[in-house]
Amino acid sequence: MNLVVILVAPRNPLNIGAAARAMQNFGCETLRVVNPYQVAFREAVSAVSAAPLLQAAREFQTVGDAVADCSLIVGTTSIGHRELQHPLHFLAEGAKLIRRKMPAGQVALLFGSEKFGLSNEDMSHCHWLMRIPTVDQSRSMNLGQAVAVCLYEITRSTTVKPAPTKKIKPAATDEIERITQMLLESSRRSGYMNPVVATSTENKVRRMVRRLHITASDAAMWLGMLRQILWKLRNLE
Amino acid sequence: MNLVVILVAPRNPLNIGAAARAMQNFGCETLRVVNPYQVAFREAVSAVSAAPLLQAAREFQTVGDAVADCSLIVGTTSIGHRELQHPLHFLAEGAKLIRRKMPAGQVALLFGSEKFGLSNEDMSHCHWLMRIPTVDQSRSMNLGQAVAVCLYEITRSTTVKPAPTKKIKPAATDEIERITQMLLESSRRSGYMNPVVATSTENKVRRMVRRLHITASDAAMWLGMLRQILWKLRNLE
Repeated sequence: MNLVVILVAPRNPLNIGAAARAMQNFGCETLRVVNPYQVAFREAVSAVSAAPLLQAAREFQTVGDAVADCSLIVGTTSIGHRELQHPLHFLAEGAKLIRRKMPAGQVALLFGSEKFGLSNEDMSHCHWLMRIPTVDQSRSMNLGQAVAVCLYEITRSTTVKPAPTKKIKPAATDEIERITQMLLESSRRSGYMNPVVATSTENKVRRMVRRLHITASDAAMWLGMLRQILWKLRNLE
Repeated sequence: MNLVVILVAPRNPLNIGAAARAMQNFGCETLRVVNPYQVAFREAVSAVSAAPLLQAAREFQTVGDAVADCSLIVGTTSIGHRELQHPLHFLAEGAKLIRRKMPAGQVALLFGSEKFGLSNEDMSHCHWLMRIPTVDQSRSMNLGQAVAVCLYEITRSTTVKPAPTKKIKPAATDEIERITQMLLESSRRSGYMNPVVATSTENKVRRMVRRLHITASDAAMWLGMLRQILWKLRNLE
């Protein structure tokens, strides 16, 4: 995938590790770090659970160096656009633009430090900025979670895939009717049905059973259970 | 927002805290935990940075108790649908279904423990399962990141709103569970259930009943019929 995730001045090894894990989950392979807090970066890379792509992460001194081979540079921010001097897109829209650019060249996605985000200097390297639509009272996201959400949206399939459920085969009509009959007999034998209003109850039960949309594979189980209940009820008399 | 996040048997305080933070970012207020590793839960709640919603989180002994007031119960999984006995939706599709249900009643979103995910027993309480579309070689996501991605997708603004479907009120979860229990007792008393495989049959029946999507107006009738059948079966002994 023509996407490079760049962490600028990350300070927490757990966040670096979490960002790498999210990249792995969404098939994004290239991680770069700019001027990381060295202790944290070494700790993250040497963690037992470290993703291989973290071990291959390259380190840069400046944002300029880190994005030098990229043709689109996008910064992430939780700041509203009034304070910004850049175009700002919400994630869904921004991800579309990124997907469109990826075939033509490498796209860099920048995440700032946990505490301060991207600096004005960092942002000056960006073509535009992107924001995850969080609620106003709680805008700032955890770094690893922000990476996960961005990569989820960027890699989402553009074609609307139908749900991968198997076609569910409905039970045959005669099975449904047999279930209905067994339920009715159980109701008669158990005393649920009042003989005076039996016909209207019968119709009610018939409609009710049809509303269940019992599947072909469940019908056998229903029939089995009811058969056994009926057998027991008949033996009562 | 009519959405309840439920963490089942979480073991890592950082993950519990991260889940709560993501909820805060996306405006989701109700967190419940089922049978958490106590040390971890206490540590997460008492962390300096703990979200207020984490301090208000309620603890439950069982999944059944935690979802009792919810009308749609969705489990998350990284497992492919071949191994599952539930309908499985990818996140984008599942989130749409969840958004459609939220106005009518509370929706529960279940996340399993970091190591094992949801058990078959946990899943038997779910109407369907949902999977984040990760790459096949690295399916399992970090808990906090999975929560963030799910809530991002569920709360994403839909410019194209689906047509309002006719509101059919689903039966309350405790009614559904009562129907399940009465059906199970009937099966035991009638001899349908083999004690040796009782647990797997129980889970099978629980899933089967949930597949029926019994409506609120039908639940009373089901309860009435089953109560009567049971009364008769009990008097046999």
